[in-house]
Amino acid sequence: MLDGSRSRSLAAMELRILAVGKLKHAGLEGLVADYCKRSRAQLPISLEHVRDLEALRARLGRPRVILDERGEQITTATLAAWIGEWRDRGVRRVDFAIGDAHGFGDEDRKLADKQLALSQLTLPHRLAQLLLVEQLYRAGTILAGHPYHHQ
Amino acid sequence: MLDGSRSRSLAAMELRILAVGKLKHAGLEGLVADYCKRSRAQLPISLEHVRDLEALRARLGRPRVILDERGEQITTATLAAWIGEWRDRGVRRVDFAIGDAHGFGDEDRKLADKQLALSQLTLPHRLAQLLLVEQLYRAGTILAGHPYHHQ
Repeated sequence: MLDGSRSRSLAAMELRILAVGKLKHAGLEGLVADYCKRSRAQLPISLEHVRDLEALRARLGRPRVILDERGEQITTATLAAWIGEWRDRGVRRVDFAIGDAHGFGDEDRKLADKQLALSQLTLPHRLAQLLLVEQLYRAGTILAGHPYHHQ
Repeated sequence: MLDGSRSRSLAAMELRILAVGKLKHAGLEGLVADYCKRSRAQLPISLEHVRDLEALRARLGRPRVILDERGEQITTATLAAWIGEWRDRGVRRVDFAIGDAHGFGDEDRKLADKQLALSQLTLPHRLAQLLLVEQLYRAGTILAGHPYHHQ
């Protein structure tokens, strides 16, 4: 019964990625869709594409994490800890925002609950989306206590 | 004529990735093949899959860069600088090694010219391959002086 209640509590929260611009690559879209689908058994992840930064800002709720190269470089365990803390506080949805090539402004950073840098390397927009989906899926497996091996 | 000799000097060097295990995903394979194909106009990149660490060690030449989570976290500009330095010293091929889920041993690290960490995040093997190919392609565009925008 413990496992059941734990699953319910996990399923009560969702992770939403809002990204400017589409992936424009069937292979990438397939990979991302696969992680989103697999996430349904734990912390469900969705990915929504928006036209521009203005549309992104209008959609963003709280708490929100923005991807920014000046942000914190963290481990996957730390990402899971951030999400776990929000879950334990009863948060229903966490928004993750991926902007355009110009990045976010000072105001966006001020409004963000967390700023995350995936790497010191300059990543193309579409690979950032794939990486983030995979990391959120991985964080979900950590929080659910499921094993997830390198592939 | 300066541009011509520069192109020749770039084309004289190649970047080879040796990775344990296959991508096992048509979409990923397509993306990786696309970066390798586009790289032919600058620093050509090839990706070879080997069965295990033993086979990898037998194939590795010098200089060699190994991907290791304890390695240096660098910017794309630094990666381009590493490669540019080898190119300027007349190196014909640089090998980049991606091991298995257990990572490299002390001996492998001692024999490596550089140790590179793509991110603090724990990446699945197949995404590490994609990221490295993209970064080598990007480094090649920096060295060739071509513009390459975020996608």
